[in-house]
Amino acid sequence: MLTVNGPRLWNSLMEMAQVGATAAGGNCRLALSAEDFAARALFADWCHQAGMSLDTDAIGNLFAHRPGRDLHAAPVVMGSHLDTQPAGGRFDGIYGVLAGLEVVRSLNDAGITTAKPLEIAVWTNEEGARFTPAMLGSATFCNILPLSHALAVEDAQGISVATALAGHAGNLPLGRPFDAYFEAHIEQGPILEQAGLPIGVVSGGQAICWLDVEVRGDAAHAGTTPMALRHDALFAASTMINRLEQLAAAFQPHGLVTVGQLLIPASSRNTIPGHVRFTVDLRHHQDTHIAAMEQQARACLQQQAAQRGLDVAIRRHWFSAATPFDAECIAAVRRAVSALGYPHQDIVSGAGHDAIYLAQHCPTTMIFIPCRDGLSHNEAEYATPDDVRMGADVLLNAVVERAGG
Amino acid sequence: MLTVNGPRLWNSLMEMAQVGATAAGGNCRLALSAEDFAARALFADWCHQAGMSLDTDAIGNLFAHRPGRDLHAAPVVMGSHLDTQPAGGRFDGIYGVLAGLEVVRSLNDAGITTAKPLEIAVWTNEEGARFTPAMLGSATFCNILPLSHALAVEDAQGISVATALAGHAGNLPLGRPFDAYFEAHIEQGPILEQAGLPIGVVSGGQAICWLDVEVRGDAAHAGTTPMALRHDALFAASTMINRLEQLAAAFQPHGLVTVGQLLIPASSRNTIPGHVRFTVDLRHHQDTHIAAMEQQARACLQQQAAQRGLDVAIRRHWFSAATPFDAECIAAVRRAVSALGYPHQDIVSGAGHDAIYLAQHCPTTMIFIPCRDGLSHNEAEYATPDDVRMGADVLLNAVVERAGG
Repeated sequence: MLTVNGPRLWNSLMEMAQVGATAAGGNCRLALSAEDFAARALFADWCHQAGMSLDTDAIGNLFAHRPGRDLHAAPVVMGSHLDTQPAGGRFDGIYGVLAGLEVVRSLNDAGITTAKPLEIAVWTNEEGARFTPAMLGSATFCNILPLSHALAVEDAQGISVATALAGHAGNLPLGRPFDAYFEAHIEQGPILEQAGLPIGVVSGGQAICWLDVEVRGDAAHAGTTPMALRHDALFAASTMINRLEQLAAAFQPHGLVTVGQLLIPASSRNTIPGHVRFTVDLRHHQDTHIAAMEQQARACLQQQAAQRGLDVAIRRHWFSAATPFDAECIAAVRRAVSALGYPHQDIVSGAGHDAIYLAQHCPTTMIFIPCRDGLSHNEAEYATPDDVRMGADVLLNAVVERAGG
Repeated sequence: MLTVNGPRLWNSLMEMAQVGATAAGGNCRLALSAEDFAARALFADWCHQAGMSLDTDAIGNLFAHRPGRDLHAAPVVMGSHLDTQPAGGRFDGIYGVLAGLEVVRSLNDAGITTAKPLEIAVWTNEEGARFTPAMLGSATFCNILPLSHALAVEDAQGISVATALAGHAGNLPLGRPFDAYFEAHIEQGPILEQAGLPIGVVSGGQAICWLDVEVRGDAAHAGTTPMALRHDALFAASTMINRLEQLAAAFQPHGLVTVGQLLIPASSRNTIPGHVRFTVDLRHHQDTHIAAMEQQARACLQQQAAQRGLDVAIRRHWFSAATPFDAECIAAVRRAVSALGYPHQDIVSGAGHDAIYLAQHCPTTMIFIPCRDGLSHNEAEYATPDDVRMGADVLLNAVVERAGG
C-alpha cells in the first residue's frame, strides 16, 4: 500500500496555521481577506514546488493541476477550503486541501503518474462567516447559485464578493467535468473519537428540516391569574419541546432534534408568557425518515396546542434533502481503509461541506478523521498527527485507485 | 345603610382620566411628571371643594384631611395612587383615591362627621414605572425604605426623585400614626369577573418567592452530535418547567407558578443550547405553603439536572412573606358588604399595593372590584359604573364603622 509522509503533512498544516494565527492558537482567515489570499499564495507556492500548475474560475475557486497519462480524461479532484470562522481552527477545511497536496507530494516521491489527471480544489467562502451563504464557491461552480448572485453578495461592511475578488478570478470554466471528488475533513462531531476510530467512511449528507414555531396564549399578571384560567405559552412550549425530545428517541440512532433558539417577546419575570417563538432543527440521513419526523413533529405540536386551547403556527424555514454519496467512490475509500488495516466505521456528514454540492456534479465522497472533543469552529479545534496521517493515507489510495495508478 | 353618589364618582374618574389621556383610551401619568402633578392638583381642588385641607410629607405623599369629632384620634385613612404605567389604565390606583373622595363627599351630603378624622392618601410612585422600586412612597412612609435612599433613586434619564419632587415635598411626618388604612382597588385579575361577583373581601397579600435558575450543559453542533452524546440545556430546562407546572397543580387552588423569562445566551438555530437561564415566580397566600413550594421546586430542578448529568444553579432573587390583613378591618368590610347585600367572596391580593406596606404600619385591608378580562397595566383597563359604585359603598360603610359614625 502507498502511504503519505505524515510529518511533512503535519508540518505543512502547522505552517499554514501561522497565516491568520490567533492568540488563542486558532485561525482567523475570513474568505477573500488578506489572510485568505496569503494562505492561497502559500498553498500555490507549495503546489508549484510539487510541479503543479494553478488557475482560478470566475468565483475565485483555485485549482492546482497535476497532469495524468490520459490527456483527455477529466480530473480526479481532491480539496476543501482555506477560509476559516473568525475564531476558527487549524484543521476545518485546511486539512482537506493539504491532504490533497500531500497525496501529490507522495506520488511525486514514489514516481507515480496516474492515468487521469489530479487536481486540488480550494473552494471560495466555504464557511459563510464573511459572505452568506456558506459554500458559495462550490455552489457557484455546481450551478446551484448563479454567478451573478454570488458576485453581488456583500459582507457586513458592504463589500461585494466581486470587489473582494478583484484580480483573483480567472477563466477556468465553472461546472467543467470532474471524474470524481474526494474531500478529507475533520468530523466536527464526537462519534469517531467516542468510538476510538481514526477513519469515518462517509456515506452522505443528512436531510435537514428547519421549522419556525410560534405559540400564542394570553399574557397575564403572574400574581393575580389563577392557574386554571391561564393560557401560558411557555408551559405549552416546554411540553412541546419535551415531546420533540421524545420524538428524537423514536428515530434513533440516526434522527437528530434540536431546539436551538427560544424567545419570549417582551418578557418579564412576573408576566405569564403570552407568546413564545422557537426553532426546530430535524435531521436524518434518510429522506423517508425526515418526512416522518417532520410530520410527527407538526402533529405533536398541534396536539399540545389544541389540548391547551392555544394557537400554534408552524412554518418550514428551510428544507434540504439527504445527499447520498457515490457508491463507487465510497467503495474505493472502503477498499483503501481495509487494505491499510485502519479501524473505521461508516458515518453520515452532519455539517455542510463543499462535497454536498459536488455530489450533484460528479461522483463524490468524503473521508472523516476524529477531532478532539468533537470541537470545530473553535480555536481549540485539534486532530492528532496520527489521525491526520491515516486520513491522508486513505485519501491517497482511494484517489490512486480512482485515477488509475 | 349609607350609599355613595355613583354617577358623581364615575364622572370624577372620567374627568381625572383626561389628565395624561392616551389616544387608545388609557392614561400615561408617570410618577412626579407634569401629568402626575396635574392630577394631584385636580384632586386637591376637589378636596378643597369638599372642605378638606391638604399637606404632603418628605417623599411627596399627599394627604387630604377631614377633621373628626375627636381631636386627638389618629385618622382612618383611605387612598391609593394617581400615577400610572406608561400605557396604563383609568382605574388602577385612581379608583382608590377617588372612592375615598366620594366617601367624604357622601358624608358631607349626609351631614355626618365621624369621631375619628378621615384622610385620603395619594402615595408617590406606586407603579415603579418611572422610579424603581414600586410603592416607593408608602415604603418610605412605613420606614421600609430610608428616605435618603428613596430621594436618591433616579429615573432612566438620571433625574432623581429629589429633583422631580422639588417644591412638592412637605413637612407632614413620615410614619405618623394611622388608626387604620382601607384601600379600594380593581382586582387586576379575572377571579371576581369569572365568578360574577362585584366585591372581593381581601384577606391579605400573597407570599412571593422569586428564583433565578441557570442550567449548564454543553453547546455543540446540531448536525454532528448524536442524541445520546448531547447535554442539551434547553431539553433539560423544558422538562424542569414541565415539572414546575405539575408542582403548581399540587398546590391548587392557591399556588401560582410562573416562568416569565427564559434566555439562551448566544443561541443559534443549529447549535445545541449549552446554557439556559430562566426565572421562577412562586406565590401562595400561606407562608408554610410557599416554603414547601420553594423546597419542592428546588428538589425537582436538581433532580432533573442530576438525571441528565447537567449543572443547575438556583438562586433566590427575592422573597416576600405573606401579608395577612387586619382581622378587625376585614370584619368591618365583611359587615358592610353583607349589610349592603352585595354578592362577594374572599380573595387574596396577587399584585403589590401600597396596602401591603401599610399593613406593617397600622390595621389595614383592601376592597376589590372586578376589572374586565382581568386586564390592568393596559389602556383597555375597565371597570363598570355599577361595580365602581358598589365598591365605594362598601368602603364608605366600613370606614364609617371604623371611624365612628
